[in-house]
Amino acid sequence: MSNMELPTSLSIYGNEKVAKDILSRIWGKKGVFTCTVANTLTSTIPGISDAGDTPELTMFTPAADAELLVLGRTVCMKGIPINPGGIPTPATLTKAALELSKMPFFIVNGGCKIKPNLPCIEMGGACGDYVTSGKAVSNAKEIFNNGVILGEMLSHGSDFVVVSESCAGGTTTALAVLLAMGIVKENLVSSSSPNNPRELKMRTVTEGLKAAGIGIGDLANDPLKAIACVGDPMMPANAGIIIGAAKRVPVIVGGGTQMAAVIAAAVKLDPSIIGNIFQGTTRWLMEDPNSSMAKIMDSISGEVPIVYVNMDYSSSPYEGLQAYEWGYIKEGVGCGGSSVASIIQSSGDITCKDLLDKVHEIYRKIMNFD
Amino acid sequence: MSNMELPTSLSIYGNEKVAKDILSRIWGKKGVFTCTVANTLTSTIPGISDAGDTPELTMFTPAADAELLVLGRTVCMKGIPINPGGIPTPATLTKAALELSKMPFFIVNGGCKIKPNLPCIEMGGACGDYVTSGKAVSNAKEIFNNGVILGEMLSHGSDFVVVSESCAGGTTTALAVLLAMGIVKENLVSSSSPNNPRELKMRTVTEGLKAAGIGIGDLANDPLKAIACVGDPMMPANAGIIIGAAKRVPVIVGGGTQMAAVIAAAVKLDPSIIGNIFQGTTRWLMEDPNSSMAKIMDSISGEVPIVYVNMDYSSSPYEGLQAYEWGYIKEGVGCGGSSVASIIQSSGDITCKDLLDKVHEIYRKIMNFD
Repeated sequence: MSNMELPTSLSIYGNEKVAKDILSRIWGKKGVFTCTVANTLTSTIPGISDAGDTPELTMFTPAADAELLVLGRTVCMKGIPINPGGIPTPATLTKAALELSKMPFFIVNGGCKIKPNLPCIEMGGACGDYVTSGKAVSNAKEIFNNGVILGEMLSHGSDFVVVSESCAGGTTTALAVLLAMGIVKENLVSSSSPNNPRELKMRTVTEGLKAAGIGIGDLANDPLKAIACVGDPMMPANAGIIIGAAKRVPVIVGGGTQMAAVIAAAVKLDPSIIGNIFQGTTRWLMEDPNSSMAKIMDSISGEVPIVYVNMDYSSSPYEGLQAYEWGYIKEGVGCGGSSVASIIQSSGDITCKDLLDKVHEIYRKIMNFD
Repeated sequence: MSNMELPTSLSIYGNEKVAKDILSRIWGKKGVFTCTVANTLTSTIPGISDAGDTPELTMFTPAADAELLVLGRTVCMKGIPINPGGIPTPATLTKAALELSKMPFFIVNGGCKIKPNLPCIEMGGACGDYVTSGKAVSNAKEIFNNGVILGEMLSHGSDFVVVSESCAGGTTTALAVLLAMGIVKENLVSSSSPNNPRELKMRTVTEGLKAAGIGIGDLANDPLKAIACVGDPMMPANAGIIIGAAKRVPVIVGGGTQMAAVIAAAVKLDPSIIGNIFQGTTRWLMEDPNSSMAKIMDSISGEVPIVYVNMDYSSSPYEGLQAYEWGYIKEGVGCGGSSVASIIQSSGDITCKDLLDKVHEIYRKIMNFD
């Protein structure tokens, strides 16, 4: 099985041996998907986040994404989360993957100001403060501990666990944590916009590190402190879930550069999880010229591979979806992780084409095109 | 399969055809277990509840039960929940069933004053008021709606769903709701004590009905109002989960007379669930001379059967467990439902003897006998 042929829907970056070992152990098996929603006031800093039509609306995006996944419609706001220009949330792809695979899924509340109108698994967190405050997450340790317990619970009765996030502003807090831990020395993180506001992000993050009295790499060995100072409430929840679950079953860490900070923290807190986790993401993220998921992952560990789904929206009749090919969105709400997981669970029966067809069906329904 | 032979560990009361039809559809299949924890101030009325060493401690029992199931130890209080006299919580049997079957499980927070120190699925409820207030649950409709959503979520990826409760004082609120709905005209509910305080319960409940301006049977067609007036926050959560899940998969309603009020409410709110639910409980409850589960269920519907586990603690070397044979405890924390579910999931491979051996192992560990 370690010489398994990958379907063309999937590609591997990094340590192929580890990736194929994990894939062979969960191929055709049953997973459970989670999406951790959280807010950080950081997303309301004008220009930082495009995950919402306006800076204020970015606070509603996580709750609306969760409602879309669970209820098939939004309750906390009118319409669905869009980027400026009307590009629909990647939750449309996540929902397609979950519907096709019939995978069970849960929403985890890492700490929201705007809560989804549905039953969430509570981690005891609260909305994160501005990264510039230098005290961004008030109870990172408690959230992390709850995450570990939840990860253990999820590993009962499932052959693998998928974690993911919807937290607007999260690439900025990820950059801050990666700098505090010394994983990166420069801005390699992505953005939901093709015009990644790199300087603004770096300036904002530098202000946060200064407020916390942290230099680059100072918290290499204390990831929970890095998160408490300049992270967001999604991070300790997901780091905990990964560690709790990966002791027993493989974990797919769904998401982009935002989740790199979570992987870095989890690997530092419990190196024994290496060999039982990989990142699940999209071709769009891997091909992003304005970020480098690959470089970041190489810096964390050479043994956490990336498995990505080769989704291609260029043939879509809808401009809002074609925009994914022009550098918009790229990742989020576990769209990559859930797609990868749906392909794995179906032993490769589900393809990128099936996923695209389902995305079209969901998109038409949401936009009332039918 | 409808002529299936039941293992001796299980017995059926009521409509055998419905029971065997459901059993044949879930035999050897995979379930998910939930326990809904909630508080009602009713349990602190002296003499009402024995689910705790003192009236005040009854408020800690649900959280402690949940911690015992998930963490294997209590955090919110010292020691484990016991009845006066030192008889251990039925969570010991629930834990045995969950460990043997490896069934995934979640704790649902229906509305607690004392919350478990672990990640719960939040229903948006709050601690229930005294049943005597006549306004016992402030947002029954919201909790119910969340329950329906959760039930639908749980029915993804599981072949059946088990619901249960830990809510001290719950037989008193159950009696109140059953009277308000006209299901019973007299006190047929059970107690965790062999000296069921029947007059005190009836007096307390009568006060609550009077405060709400309700006569017996007045709310036969409005179970959510009955719960809002004289129920507890566990009820709307579980009624919702049952309805949400039973549309797609069979549901085992774990628990005693306390859950009869939930079944009555659920069946009235959505009669289409009949044929896809049964109650899962214990021999101790069915043989209780001071209550009549059977009579109550006959009044609700002739088509919701009871499947009970023939656990017998008389050969146990521990007096705290033998006490179950003397009329103490009998049910709670889904001990009956989880036992029945573990036997079903294992196609009968798990027996009452296996469960008892595991209960002994857990009991010794908790009591530090080893």
